[in-house]
Amino acid sequence: MDHMSASIAVHPHRLLPADPATRAIAESLLTLVEHLPILSPHGHVDAAVLERDERFPDPATMLVTPDHYVTRLLHAAGVPLGELGLGSEPAPPREVWRRFCAGWPLFDGTASGYWLRSELVQVFGIDDARLTAEHADDLYDELERRLGSPEFRPRALFERFGIEVFATTDDPLDDLSAHRALAADPTFRGRVLPTFRPDAYLKAHSAGWAERVDRLISVAAGGASGYAGYIAALEERRRYFIAHGAVSTDHGAATAQTLKLDPADAAALFDRARAGDADAADAAAFEAHMMYEMARMSVDDGLVMTVHPGVFRNHHRPSFDRFGGDTGHDIPVRIDYTAALRPLLNDFGTREGFHLVLFTIDETTFSRELAPLAGFYPAVYIGAPWWFLDAPDAMLRFRSAVTETAGFSRASGFIDDTRAFASIPARHDAARRVECAFLARLVAEHRITEERAAEIVVDLVDHAPRRVFKL
Amino acid sequence: MDHMSASIAVHPHRLLPADPATRAIAESLLTLVEHLPILSPHGHVDAAVLERDERFPDPATMLVTPDHYVTRLLHAAGVPLGELGLGSEPAPPREVWRRFCAGWPLFDGTASGYWLRSELVQVFGIDDARLTAEHADDLYDELERRLGSPEFRPRALFERFGIEVFATTDDPLDDLSAHRALAADPTFRGRVLPTFRPDAYLKAHSAGWAERVDRLISVAAGGASGYAGYIAALEERRRYFIAHGAVSTDHGAATAQTLKLDPADAAALFDRARAGDADAADAAAFEAHMMYEMARMSVDDGLVMTVHPGVFRNHHRPSFDRFGGDTGHDIPVRIDYTAALRPLLNDFGTREGFHLVLFTIDETTFSRELAPLAGFYPAVYIGAPWWFLDAPDAMLRFRSAVTETAGFSRASGFIDDTRAFASIPARHDAARRVECAFLARLVAEHRITEERAAEIVVDLVDHAPRRVFKL
Amino acid sequence: MDHMSASIAVHPHRLLPADPATRAIAESLLTLVEHLPILSPHGHVDAAVLERDERFPDPATMLVTPDHYVTRLLHAAGVPLGELGLGSEPAPPREVWRRFCAGWPLFDGTASGYWLRSELVQVFGIDDARLTAEHADDLYDELERRLGSPEFRPRALFERFGIEVFATTDDPLDDLSAHRALAADPTFRGRVLPTFRPDAYLKAHSAGWAERVDRLISVAAGGASGYAGYIAALEERRRYFIAHGAVSTDHGAATAQTLKLDPADAAALFDRARAGDADAADAAAFEAHMMYEMARMSVDDGLVMTVHPGVFRNHHRPSFDRFGGDTGHDIPVRIDYTAALRPLLNDFGTREGFHLVLFTIDETTFSRELAPLAGFYPAVYIGAPWWFLDAPDAMLRFRSAVTETAGFSRASGFIDDTRAFASIPARHDAARRVECAFLARLVAEHRITEERAAEIVVDLVDHAPRRVFKL
Repeated sequence: MDHMSASIAVHPHRLLPADPATRAIAESLLTLVEHLPILSPHGHVDAAVLERDERFPDPATMLVTPDHYVTRLLHAAGVPLGELGLGSEPAPPREVWRRFCAGWPLFDGTASGYWLRSELVQVFGIDDARLTAEHADDLYDELERRLGSPEFRPRALFERFGIEVFATTDDPLDDLSAHRALAADPTFRGRVLPTFRPDAYLKAHSAGWAERVDRLISVAAGGASGYAGYIAALEERRRYFIAHGAVSTDHGAATAQTLKLDPADAAALFDRARAGDADAADAAAFEAHMMYEMARMSVDDGLVMTVHPGVFRNHHRPSFDRFGGDTGHDIPVRIDYTAALRPLLNDFGTREGFHLVLFTIDETTFSRELAPLAGFYPAVYIGAPWWFLDAPDAMLRFRSAVTETAGFSRASGFIDDTRAFASIPARHDAARRVECAFLARLVAEHRITEERAAEIVVDLVDHAPRRVFKL
Repeated sequence: MDHMSASIAVHPHRLLPADPATRAIAESLLTLVEHLPILSPHGHVDAAVLERDERFPDPATMLVTPDHYVTRLLHAAGVPLGELGLGSEPAPPREVWRRFCAGWPLFDGTASGYWLRSELVQVFGIDDARLTAEHADDLYDELERRLGSPEFRPRALFERFGIEVFATTDDPLDDLSAHRALAADPTFRGRVLPTFRPDAYLKAHSAGWAERVDRLISVAAGGASGYAGYIAALEERRRYFIAHGAVSTDHGAATAQTLKLDPADAAALFDRARAGDADAADAAAFEAHMMYEMARMSVDDGLVMTVHPGVFRNHHRPSFDRFGGDTGHDIPVRIDYTAALRPLLNDFGTREGFHLVLFTIDETTFSRELAPLAGFYPAVYIGAPWWFLDAPDAMLRFRSAVTETAGFSRASGFIDDTRAFASIPARHDAARRVECAFLARLVAEHRITEERAAEIVVDLVDHAPRRVFKL
Repeated sequence: MDHMSASIAVHPHRLLPADPATRAIAESLLTLVEHLPILSPHGHVDAAVLERDERFPDPATMLVTPDHYVTRLLHAAGVPLGELGLGSEPAPPREVWRRFCAGWPLFDGTASGYWLRSELVQVFGIDDARLTAEHADDLYDELERRLGSPEFRPRALFERFGIEVFATTDDPLDDLSAHRALAADPTFRGRVLPTFRPDAYLKAHSAGWAERVDRLISVAAGGASGYAGYIAALEERRRYFIAHGAVSTDHGAATAQTLKLDPADAAALFDRARAGDADAADAAAFEAHMMYEMARMSVDDGLVMTVHPGVFRNHHRPSFDRFGGDTGHDIPVRIDYTAALRPLLNDFGTREGFHLVLFTIDETTFSRELAPLAGFYPAVYIGAPWWFLDAPDAMLRFRSAVTETAGFSRASGFIDDTRAFASIPARHDAARRVECAFLARLVAEHRITEERAAEIVVDLVDHAPRRVFKL
């Protein structure tokens, strides 16, 4: 065996259980799904990357700087964010890359480490034994050469990765021209779908909210004004997104709170907020009401509603002030769903065709709230392990926590949620292996039959995302 | 091997660990407990079922309709509750059964799936490979034939299941005539014990509370009235239950809060509530005080006090309005025990003979609160994994979470808590196998000796429920 | 094989995984760390024990009475604390020992059971098969003989245990004479470090606070008075501790709350508290502010700040009144770090050289809050599993919960935190075995290479505590 093939990144048993009998079952299940096309119904790569199809600028700008999973651990080890390419006077990419190579041992055992190793070895053909400070410059040059060649352009990678469906996350006022261009381009065969993400228009306490709302109304309310115009404009932009292929909306609320207000009360709150007179409680009530409204609109227009609550955004104020958001210090908090979602679920939880996908990074809710909710309400699906939980052990804990209550039919299927384009195959590979590992244990313990496990793993990887996200 | 014996429902290694050495230890432990009599100190089957000993009406009414574990997952998959036999114009049982067979794959990996498969194969001799929509009618007919034969009557099954002790859950004003008749019947050898469940008399905000309390006082207060009569009547009914074999009381409070009020303050609260003037805070304080009082009475009369808190009952209002309670949408919420129980434990936590069994469906409390409390207070026992947690992986998480702090001596022993009579042997079988699996791992890792594991498993299955529930 | 060598306490595979391939990897990793010196940067043994080097009084006083891990489980089984050597009229040690031997089966599967068995077999050469009521007196006599011999004196054990660094926990006004004497003694080679534990001076609602603060100011404020004197005195005593070898401060706050007050507001709060006029909210605000101040001082003087929050102390009031604190009824509560620590972390979370070690006994915070915080803030380290979580399964859950987000570099390294001197080697042995077990699984699943696992295990056991605690 040569060195490359000895890398753990290409070991056929990676992420599979150690027990030989269980591993054999997992291997057999894996053959059924490892080559299936990638369905990515939620992520954060810009559609323009695919539309323009320009070469990725350099290894550091591609792999390190924009990926807050990566910068955060280097920062924790003492590397200032400015030396990782962030901020107004960013460090040169080669120096960022050296920092990354020197810090590579920090990633052992992490999900990011798994993805990075996989993409460097499998996508870029790098020898991971050379991921050291000593070889940093050589690797940088090697990666530069790869990035300069046509087969490392975004569309070529998209094809090579076997991506069939690929969702982006977009502002409601985005004109979606990149999506339109891709759809119209006969040379590009993937489906690239926008996702309606209205957070900034629903959080009345966020900076610039009134101006954004004014613009929304002026662009899309068809002449209506005030709260009625605001609602009409949101409905109109959802239709616009649907016309451009959107299948879902995404909501990053701080909590899962929902609230049904009388239209008159909602309008009064809206007016107060627009006049700058809303306090924190008003803003929270308005957002909770708008989550209810978003569900109502989903019942009407069929967009799948995905919710990602429970994060304290921009925890470190000085880093936010200097480097902006999404720089590694969004920190989870405890969250409740049971009481918070009741207003919404009482009215829409059994409405045919309504899909509400609930993500969490508070693991305690998996067995306590999400599996019981999804095990009763036809509308509720349990979101796949998200963010910090998108990792092998956490995925196994997730399956263990939800399956005994809700079975395999009530979860969303994997989402990669990534900003790191080249990590997509590694993320799906990890998720598929972990599903096989979990199912193999149930087979080995005679809890399910091997025949059913084979059906279930295909369902989890392929049918579930199509069904839940209406692909 | 013929087909039946190939079912996973009868595989000798079902629920045992895959590692061969660990499995061998587990198998050996299992031989010590698999044939022990069933002790069921908490459940929801009506004593009248055994007293009357009538045939079960039909497969759907026996196995599907009344079991909210089963109806809920079918409902989540889009089957209206009305088509599962619930409501005022229920679907015919044969159609309910077809719905169930078509939905059978939903139950793979769930606790209910394990129990259903076991009872169908082991109790009814059904071939589980035929649990499909296609064979639904044949299976229905086959089950109908079985149910019509004498050996499938309740008492015959009770005997065949090897049940020694069997507790029901009863209203304090129940006359317990079925229990009395069974005790007096020389042809019936099982012990069928009532359980005193006073929730509806302690929750001043529940509909009809004042009327129930009036009736309680008029029936059992011996002439006393007001708060004093209320307390006297509760004490009297507890004595009545004890005289009919009761060993425990059961409490389904929303929280674990306890509170010691002065009798005068308690009486004032009671009068306010009876006049309909109590607000939500009053009702909560009154219930917390009554939990304290229930403990006081248990210290006096010896009834074991079991508490099942932390559930948001009847979450989906439209389903509750149409189909009533216990229809699958009771959803857990986060709960605290440490501060909430302090008033009760400060006064009664070390009182000799007082047993307080704390159940939870918030797993976070196992290692954080329940094991530490039960590891100090002689009165406190950790309830076995309950409801959504009564499943193999959850039971293993439970043992892992509590054992290192509290050992094996501080838990209640298994309770099946079921409404589904025919599922009782499957539930106890699963619990016994999981205990063996956990202990086998500790032996394989040289944490305990195999000799001690053998003593412990018999203690967990047989001695613990006798000791904790004073059987 | 003779009987002694057959004890599970000396089994070479104890605490290692059962799967043969994984176990072989773990065994190989263990050879790298099992003989490394013991670093104990946090514990509760009195330095005077080593300074005086007197024989331990008797088996019960050494092994049972002062160890609330041990007395609590015996108490839960019904043994009054007074019969375990506590209180003003304690039971004779031999009777305490009989109680312990009779209760020995209670400890199967617990962390304390593992430690006790290990120390009795490995330190004292006892045959653990004789840990029964029947042999209690013989064992007592045997242990008495051992304790009377020079090789069982504290310093001889210290040497035999291979302890290199050993921290105590001390009152800020302690004169540290024992530490000074040990440092000056050329015949004693270990490093015995004091730890600055100012809780009683920061909790304005604790009994005697004003008197303690007056004494602190009079002793160490250099003539300053009021709040300024209080701050100056704390700074002065920290310097005194540093001069005596201290590397860290320790804080047992009820919550993790921090707060930055204006000096004038802080002074006003301080004055109000000193006048006895502070209410509970004032006291909580003052403590939160002082946690912020402690961090500020650590930034200045370099002491590592360790925080152990989330415990309801002295839960059972009658036991506290009769037997005092640390008698087994400190019970964990739910805790939050994300919002609570923000004021402190915004100002000091990226200050070079500042180390904040966050311990928890609420496991839910490992993946949800602690790993994300430590994965961004250079100052934050995740404390090793503490107290009830200092046990094999809990340690594995800890590694599983934090590693995928924060890797291996962001945790504190093991602390034994013990009052039981003779349990120290057993505790470190258990921790090392569990680290090997965890790493072996990652190697067996091809998540990390065996070469890196070898580096990581040495880092976890040896380098991490040196680095994090600045040893």
